[in-house]
Amino acid sequence: MLLQIPPSTFLKELREQIPLVHCITNYVAMDIAANVLLAVGASPAMVHAEEEAGEFAKLAGAITINIGTLSSGWLRGMEAAAIAATQSGKPWVLDPVAHYATAFRRDATELLLKLGPTIIRGNASEIIALAGGAFRGKGVDTGDDVEHAKHSARLLADRHGAVVAVTGAVDFITDGKRAFRIEGGSVLMPRVTALGCSLTCLVGAFAAVRPGAPFEATVAAVATFAVAGELAADKSEGPGSFSWRFLDALGAIDGPCLDHRARVTTA
Amino acid sequence: MLLQIPPSTFLKELREQIPLVHCITNYVAMDIAANVLLAVGASPAMVHAEEEAGEFAKLAGAITINIGTLSSGWLRGMEAAAIAATQSGKPWVLDPVAHYATAFRRDATELLLKLGPTIIRGNASEIIALAGGAFRGKGVDTGDDVEHAKHSARLLADRHGAVVAVTGAVDFITDGKRAFRIEGGSVLMPRVTALGCSLTCLVGAFAAVRPGAPFEATVAAVATFAVAGELAADKSEGPGSFSWRFLDALGAIDGPCLDHRARVTTA
Amino acid sequence: MLLQIPPSTFLKELREQIPLVHCITNYVAMDIAANVLLAVGASPAMVHAEEEAGEFAKLAGAITINIGTLSSGWLRGMEAAAIAATQSGKPWVLDPVAHYATAFRRDATELLLKLGPTIIRGNASEIIALAGGAFRGKGVDTGDDVEHAKHSARLLADRHGAVVAVTGAVDFITDGKRAFRIEGGSVLMPRVTALGCSLTCLVGAFAAVRPGAPFEATVAAVATFAVAGELAADKSEGPGSFSWRFLDALGAIDGPCLDHRARVTTA
Repeated sequence: MLLQIPPSTFLKELREQIPLVHCITNYVAMDIAANVLLAVGASPAMVHAEEEAGEFAKLAGAITINIGTLSSGWLRGMEAAAIAATQSGKPWVLDPVAHYATAFRRDATELLLKLGPTIIRGNASEIIALAGGAFRGKGVDTGDDVEHAKHSARLLADRHGAVVAVTGAVDFITDGKRAFRIEGGSVLMPRVTALGCSLTCLVGAFAAVRPGAPFEATVAAVATFAVAGELAADKSEGPGSFSWRFLDALGAIDGPCLDHRARVTTA
Repeated sequence: MLLQIPPSTFLKELREQIPLVHCITNYVAMDIAANVLLAVGASPAMVHAEEEAGEFAKLAGAITINIGTLSSGWLRGMEAAAIAATQSGKPWVLDPVAHYATAFRRDATELLLKLGPTIIRGNASEIIALAGGAFRGKGVDTGDDVEHAKHSARLLADRHGAVVAVTGAVDFITDGKRAFRIEGGSVLMPRVTALGCSLTCLVGAFAAVRPGAPFEATVAAVATFAVAGELAADKSEGPGSFSWRFLDALGAIDGPCLDHRARVTTA
Repeated sequence: MLLQIPPSTFLKELREQIPLVHCITNYVAMDIAANVLLAVGASPAMVHAEEEAGEFAKLAGAITINIGTLSSGWLRGMEAAAIAATQSGKPWVLDPVAHYATAFRRDATELLLKLGPTIIRGNASEIIALAGGAFRGKGVDTGDDVEHAKHSARLLADRHGAVVAVTGAVDFITDGKRAFRIEGGSVLMPRVTALGCSLTCLVGAFAAVRPGAPFEATVAAVATFAVAGELAADKSEGPGSFSWRFLDALGAIDGPCLDHRARVTTA
């Protein structure tokens, strides 16, 4: 393993700490994202109102912000949570879902980026578009390969001082200096809604465990997702059976299995 | 097969085109509806805010609007999306969930009907009530048989120049001139929440494939739902297992199976 | 069986009456809570807007209010529904999710408590905090045992003239005079999101059946949940498979099985 901290260390510490992860995510993702966090051993809480998002963020180990089903009121809650996260030194993850699709989304993403996310996770089209490149995304689904988003990811990481994770058939993670490629998962994963959004929440859970190591935490979370995806796909007959087998796999996976099966290489 | 365009043609073209379906649906339906669309091969996006619903609708192949968990802010987003759909010649589907239950819902439905839906889908009580008839619905569940809604459906189709689909144990679809009856499905379907709402989204996906043939698209979508329901019910032990088997069936169903099993007759 | 009305009587009457349960619950719980109610045989409706929540509440057999993903607009809908419930003599259930976490939540809970809930359901930390005791909850998950919440539950029941249910590994239900302890369930239940919230909705469904017997209704609902949890856990390999097996079990459970397996003792 090339990593200074193996994924199993994060998984072990996560299950000991049971970190509270404050998720502001979209309506579609709420159920599956909460179940992903509970299955792996974390404690999710979905809290979005501007009246309390900042106060609640200070109680959490990490905050994740996803603009999937954005509205003005929720954006104010996202801002409050991001500001509180930064002020209290908590890692926070930005998931700029289809930020290129409308002016409302572009403006919101620009605003949130200025608040300094610790980690940015998106699909290839989202990351390319965020870096100002030519992308082919349609709606919330990517139209580009992760391979073509590598340059954009490095550029974004430098520009924002953030860890950037591009996820898809193969995943790419960089902090601007280091970069890893992760293989695994299943073709069924994009056939289940909001698994990318759920991964954003899982990245938050791993980052909460060791707030000083967001790059390694992101790699560990993405690797855990990929391995659980492979395990679940083995016995699945379609997206319906994959969905619950994936949760079972996240619950059953242990450290040795994770480190053994994780396919992380330098990129 | 009595249909000019068999269901398999729509299914094949849907999987080639992967249409973007802009769904404004209720909170309960979001997850299952997105999973239904992904399982069959379409690309769902849930976008509701008035700030962007109109802009986003122009990117989509079809728009679906469901008033299940209505609020004033969402109604403005629905209006913007419906207007944009009409302006850009995109088919849009109205699902007037329990529109008879409160004044707020009745007014909203009246407003949306004036914006000219391409297709209206509801259960028998909703369709009867929409046409001004005596209905027995309670909450969001029907208290009437589809058989008793046929006259109301024809009346609505004429009045609004729309395709009307009444779904239930048996389904009835009319454009005012032609009418089909579709058998199939399973008694477990009303035991899983929001399957009717998900069907509305599926109708949108099929309508996106051939915007000029909303009647045939609706029949094809409803037939696909009915066949997948039958296939899923075969091995299910209750509503929980039915739910994921249904998604697996939607993913696995192919053209020959669909046309062979679809029970569509003139009505 | 120590109960004056056995759980099976409620279950039988519920399936005959198919009560309409008006649920104002959080975004995470919407899907699973609706499926829990449909699986057992009730008719759920999620309606939250202040424009219609009061009007809709009068149509329902019971109302359930859960502050999980609270916002100001929803709070106004909750108030309207609670007032309408009280005015029309309908039982209503309060689920004060993580009410101790922020000022916004504390104020909202205080407001709702003044509207006189028929039944209050929470985890041990929530019930202890509500009674003014020292609690160890973090986020939405309990940090206390039900055993330590018994005194607080009795105190709350007296103070508000309400039935109080504390649920967890073991459940405790009191109306201030009588008290029962219920065993059962599964360690997988807290690993599936929003099962506690779903139980709140199920308590509403049982209370709708016999509005004059909220204590017995709560015991019956909690016992049904515990038995279904045990049945589902038998064959489950993790939280994903537990979730759908639990819905299957709720659909399959019958009166004799329920009364035979329910482990209700005086507490």
